[in-house]
Amino acid sequence: MDNRPIGFLDSGVGGLTVVRELMRQLPHEEVVYIGDSARAPYGPRPAEQIKDYTWQLVNFLLTKDVKMIVFACNTATAVAWEEVKAKLDIPVLGVILPGASAAIKSSSSGQIGVIGTPMTIASDIYREKILALSPNMSVKSLACPKFVPIVESNQHLSSVAKKAVYESLAPFVGQVDTLVLGCTHYPLLRQIIQNVMGPKVKLIDSGAECVRDISVLLNYFQLNRSREFSDTRYQFYTTASSSSFKAIAEEWLSQSIQVEHVKL
Amino acid sequence: MDNRPIGFLDSGVGGLTVVRELMRQLPHEEVVYIGDSARAPYGPRPAEQIKDYTWQLVNFLLTKDVKMIVFACNTATAVAWEEVKAKLDIPVLGVILPGASAAIKSSSSGQIGVIGTPMTIASDIYREKILALSPNMSVKSLACPKFVPIVESNQHLSSVAKKAVYESLAPFVGQVDTLVLGCTHYPLLRQIIQNVMGPKVKLIDSGAECVRDISVLLNYFQLNRSREFSDTRYQFYTTASSSSFKAIAEEWLSQSIQVEHVKL
Repeated sequence: MDNRPIGFLDSGVGGLTVVRELMRQLPHEEVVYIGDSARAPYGPRPAEQIKDYTWQLVNFLLTKDVKMIVFACNTATAVAWEEVKAKLDIPVLGVILPGASAAIKSSSSGQIGVIGTPMTIASDIYREKILALSPNMSVKSLACPKFVPIVESNQHLSSVAKKAVYESLAPFVGQVDTLVLGCTHYPLLRQIIQNVMGPKVKLIDSGAECVRDISVLLNYFQLNRSREFSDTRYQFYTTASSSSFKAIAEEWLSQSIQVEHVKL
Repeated sequence: MDNRPIGFLDSGVGGLTVVRELMRQLPHEEVVYIGDSARAPYGPRPAEQIKDYTWQLVNFLLTKDVKMIVFACNTATAVAWEEVKAKLDIPVLGVILPGASAAIKSSSSGQIGVIGTPMTIASDIYREKILALSPNMSVKSLACPKFVPIVESNQHLSSVAKKAVYESLAPFVGQVDTLVLGCTHYPLLRQIIQNVMGPKVKLIDSGAECVRDISVLLNYFQLNRSREFSDTRYQFYTTASSSSFKAIAEEWLSQSIQVEHVKL
């Protein structure tokens, strides 16, 4: 047993989709979340800079005495997960392997689509991981650079969002039976994406898949928090405005939260 | 990626229920299985002896260059898992935590039953793990010493089996909404157990739950075997008669296999 919180990092608010899933599956676990909204999106930045920012987020979480760190960000996972995992002595999880693994299990035609930020798509990491596990799959990738700014500006239900999703996903419609939402911001656009792709396409939420893995690793490393505590604390930090983070987080998590601004 | 086999150990044939589940969920992974049928059942033996036998099985698997070891045996998990896991530098999984965790998620009334060998029940490890995770659960335990000898002698479909299950489980009928099959031999008696307990009781197969965890840990430690190989090799070893092991294994796994006798 280990009653310390789990640390989550993301370039901004997207990782909240993973936290929401954690609250559902493991409601007794405590959370420290840091979102680097001041520097989001990470997607178009050079790899060295993303790695540098990610380490700043990791080091911030370590000051909060977390028992595990979850990269609730595909871009950071693609660029820095292996390095951070190798250097820390607490478990470090990324969202890519759980998503890749779920996509393979979901696809019956072998035609898998992956959408993500420019950096995640340029890294080609989903295709690489999917093909390593299952070489007969066909993986099509597509960068959707408009999606994160839409979500970060709380416009994910707007007509701007609908237009951007319709236009961006046009090349995938009818081409795949499984679509990996390879960015934790994208589940906020899920309904629009499902409408565009059609009801038969299975959407893989890499963050939700990741929470199943968190549960298994908490067991394996014997790090579960006891369910005897009635009180569960969630701490949220952002590098940008706490009020705009709070607005989107409270809507998404359906609860009132405290958010603190932090300078890295 | 790591194309080496996964090692499974059990006191006898019970762990084959875990291998069957592995073949279903991860058909590309190779297996080395060692069953200590000559000294089964482990349940009534003293803890030090079980630990000693378990180390012999572990050391045998290590000579086969396995990438991971699965304790497909609740008794060995209860007695030796933590020690072996701490000493080896490959992942070592037991069946108890996945089973305990699944039982908590399954139970709506909080009334959980656990059946196992005398040693597993005496160790009280399921109750301990379930209550540590979720202190409000009520856990009733019951040793079923007749079950393993019935399965090991390939009598699991006989009227002897039916009688033993009816008599053994009588104290649990109507008392629990979830029953943990806390011994990997017990899924061979599953239909009879379900008939006795009634259709509404959820049976938790600790071995099947364990395979979900194997999949996650293969991802986390990046140990998956590539799915490009069309050929998957299964190696079975037993300390007792290879022909009787082969008979029950082929029936249970629905395929023809090779079994080698080994002296530890």
